Amino acid sequence: MAIRERLNLAVSTLRVDSLQAQACRRQQARCAHQPLPMAPSLRLTYFDFMGRAEPIRLALSIGGVPFQDERLTLNDFAALKPSLPFAQLPVIDVGGESLAQAPAILRYAGKLSGLLPRDPIAAMRADEIIFAVQDAIADFGPSTAEREAARRLEMRRALAAETLPGRLEMIERRIRGRGTEYCAGEEMTVADLSVYCFFRVMRGGDGALEGIPTGLVDAYEEICAVCGRVEAHPKVREWNDAHRKGE
Amino acid sequence: MAIRERLNLAVSTLRVDSLQAQACRRQQARCAHQPLPMAPSLRLTYFDFMGRAEPIRLALSIGGVPFQDERLTLNDFAALKPSLPFAQLPVIDVGGESLAQAPAILRYAGKLSGLLPRDPIAAMRADEIIFAVQDAIADFGPSTAEREAARRLEMRRALAAETLPGRLEMIERRIRGRGTEYCAGEEMTVADLSVYCFFRVMRGGDGALEGIPTGLVDAYEEICAVCGRVEAHPKVREWNDAHRKGE
Repeated sequence: MAIRERLNLAVSTLRVDSLQAQACRRQQARCAHQPLPMAPSLRLTYFDFMGRAEPIRLALSIGGVPFQDERLTLNDFAALKPSLPFAQLPVIDVGGESLAQAPAILRYAGKLSGLLPRDPIAAMRADEIIFAVQDAIADFGPSTAEREAARRLEMRRALAAETLPGRLEMIERRIRGRGTEYCAGEEMTVADLSVYCFFRVMRGGDGALEGIPTGLVDAYEEICAVCGRVEAHPKVREWNDAHRKGE
Repeated sequence: MAIRERLNLAVSTLRVDSLQAQACRRQQARCAHQPLPMAPSLRLTYFDFMGRAEPIRLALSIGGVPFQDERLTLNDFAALKPSLPFAQLPVIDVGGESLAQAPAILRYAGKLSGLLPRDPIAAMRADEIIFAVQDAIADFGPSTAEREAARRLEMRRALAAETLPGRLEMIERRIRGRGTEYCAGEEMTVADLSVYCFFRVMRGGDGALEGIPTGLVDAYEEICAVCGRVEAHPKVREWNDAHRKGE
């Protein structure tokens, strides 16, 4: 083969790689899970309290991701309920598509905001804490649904005396065992926002929880330390200053 | 500039891109969430029935990810419980680190197996279904914990008559509304494995569920169609053939 032909072959091989490098760079940009500049327009719909939506609001706010923070009255909700995907709030509207389930939305917000680890094991550590908090939130279900006041109060007292301390103790031990600054590592993730918002609701941030002493969470040093770190984040402070009510 | 020099310059530019392409391919392989060849050694621990572990087992099996499928008796569990991160099964041991919470482990297994979309919105569609199934599983909690047999049966009947049909109807409508082959798109994801395993448990795959008619799920055409597609997957067939008990 003449030198010129060999050179042409080498150049065309390199050219293929060059095109692949360009495609790779585009692909990399898509899968980096850093704050995405081109996120579609978002509307988060929930009630006018923290509940299940606050960690999502905080994540988007920390990540500087613009979103419409729609807050419904109970009457608005009753009217909207039949059209909601799972008859529940929160829902997020993503460029016209409505998606439900708080932990699904929280994970999405975490990806948009750079608050969810990309490494699969690190992400599992964060998910584990998110679902542990979900378990604790779910514990409130039966008592919240109970209509008979005395029975409801009795259920809440059992929750405060046994179930919740058990749940909190497990999260506490988990953080202590990891020995990291945050629940799932050295960086703040949406798992910390979950723990922090649960902590605030337990302390009466959404109004006193019937039958639950507001000081219950204070006994858990590691949880309180993480919550202190989250609360000191400038963007969290800024959000809280703009939205705090009667706490 | 002489032709030779210009050619040299062009070649060296392309060579940089070539190196970048190689680096990109390595990087892509890491973040592609396709089956990872270097996954750490995995041990999944649960009971000897489907329950909350089966979608995880199926995902790993479909992805060809080797794992130790440890199955405990209730006595084994009682002995192990104090050392478990959240006093629950399943747990997964990942290269010596124990992690809990079924949906967290399922998402991890989905990443290892290429059964979880990389696009954040597509992943949220899958997550939404996973958590909708979690809601349905959680509905069994109070009746399972009820010790008084007549009261337990009454709770199960209410579950079968009202709560579960409501949950299933919402999942059914969601799949129909999407109009896709699978719950969250045209490709099978861990969301479909969640729905499929719930469907099988409801049909008595883990033994009859007290107070729940085994034909309850059959009324939901879209759910049954998805479950049929999952069940026809060669790897799912292979797994079921090796593990089917009394169904």
